[in-house]
Amino acid sequence: MNGFRAKYEATVERNRSLLCVGLDPDAALMPPGADVVEYLGRIIEATSDLVCCYKPNAAFFEPNGDAGWRDLKAVIERIPSHIPVLLDAKRGDVGNTSKAYARAVFDTLGADAVTANPYLGSDGLEPFFSYSDKHTFVLCRTSNEGARELQDLTVGEGRPLYEHVAMLAAGWNVREGRENVGLVVGATYPEEAARIREVAPDLLFLMPGVGAQAGDLEAAVQASVDAHGGAILVSASRSVLYAGNEEASRAEAMRLRDGINAARG
Amino acid sequence: MNGFRAKYEATVERNRSLLCVGLDPDAALMPPGADVVEYLGRIIEATSDLVCCYKPNAAFFEPNGDAGWRDLKAVIERIPSHIPVLLDAKRGDVGNTSKAYARAVFDTLGADAVTANPYLGSDGLEPFFSYSDKHTFVLCRTSNEGARELQDLTVGEGRPLYEHVAMLAAGWNVREGRENVGLVVGATYPEEAARIREVAPDLLFLMPGVGAQAGDLEAAVQASVDAHGGAILVSASRSVLYAGNEEASRAEAMRLRDGINAARG
Repeated sequence: MNGFRAKYEATVERNRSLLCVGLDPDAALMPPGADVVEYLGRIIEATSDLVCCYKPNAAFFEPNGDAGWRDLKAVIERIPSHIPVLLDAKRGDVGNTSKAYARAVFDTLGADAVTANPYLGSDGLEPFFSYSDKHTFVLCRTSNEGARELQDLTVGEGRPLYEHVAMLAAGWNVREGRENVGLVVGATYPEEAARIREVAPDLLFLMPGVGAQAGDLEAAVQASVDAHGGAILVSASRSVLYAGNEEASRAEAMRLRDGINAARG
Repeated sequence: MNGFRAKYEATVERNRSLLCVGLDPDAALMPPGADVVEYLGRIIEATSDLVCCYKPNAAFFEPNGDAGWRDLKAVIERIPSHIPVLLDAKRGDVGNTSKAYARAVFDTLGADAVTANPYLGSDGLEPFFSYSDKHTFVLCRTSNEGARELQDLTVGEGRPLYEHVAMLAAGWNVREGRENVGLVVGATYPEEAARIREVAPDLLFLMPGVGAQAGDLEAAVQASVDAHGGAILVSASRSVLYAGNEEASRAEAMRLRDGINAARG
């Protein structure tokens, strides 16, 4: 079990939670004049006993340029070291370029895991996988409406592309015994999630799309858990971050955590 | 004709060049102790009358964190304002997240164009396209070996996925008359490039894979040019950047420019 997965399993156990809180400092939703690091730092303090992971999203830091990257690193440092950090960055390029991205995410920012895009194939992902203590969540079936345009195309012998990607990822996962590949599976499509779980029974699923994105939590969880009722990270961002104040953020995180646990049965 | 394309056409004309120089400050290849901005600034000075575009690659700046982003912006500012800047960043996410990435690339860094990944579908790309003065190059057939794993899969009625993406992009390009969508087409696969040009006769192609990546320049150019012998940006990075000194960089850029022009006929 690699560093990320061990940290994840320990946190799931300690906090009885499969909730991953996304840290998306959207300027349009933050209180005017709020300091990003302080604001997110308080959300982290208010929810750190309720989550299995935090997921800062690079996109929402980058509009502030170098200052945004400084904030991103500072936010990651605010996360208690026993809780895993998944950087949502959707990176992916050819080999030597992905190697630079992997260094940035894992060495420079110190994240425990990352999201990556499979369109360039496995040689573009290998530089991420080669960090055997880190976890790489490969985009499979995303939570947005337009996901169907490519991901649902029928390929080869009649499977949708997303299912083909899940099968590839299951193969990549056992390369060199690393077992550090996960999948991004939108919580908005439970039927697709169930098909993916069939072909990738052991992989961790990062599941965005609950909360503000309004997926059906119960159906999504039941379709996605592994044989032990776990191996998922259900991600919510805006509904927790912008609940109004820390108490409301904590209440929303608790509601989601308990909802996920109720659905697991 | 949008801002980027007009700037590109004017630079092609002025410099009689379809060469795009990639700006990849790879720590392993730079002279020890070299300042990134000074080093790349000198390359820019030595080649600015020989190129149609510069393409800084975000990946090679990010391992330096916030300082890397500061360098990235400073390098972009070193590029003469009449030469277009294409940020190679391979970004792509769901809609409101891509909106943040687009702001970072176009507003914060001031790039004229970007590379983006199509796996999430058009609602994830629309925030980039909506900058009508900017150009977005969608990954289609990349130059790496692993490209075939997803991009060559047969989809729907029997086309490879990359060709399907090219057809989709040709449709996205004419949305609202914006004509600001291009494609990334590796110079390493001329047969595939010819098929893509058939279904996307008017789109600009960004073509990485010559120089250090050793594609066959003549075949790649002949397969890819549009009906007027243009609409391509042939990209080389390492062979120009790490030629040894500015004179050698200039000589390599000239060799590539002239080779491309000879191939155009």
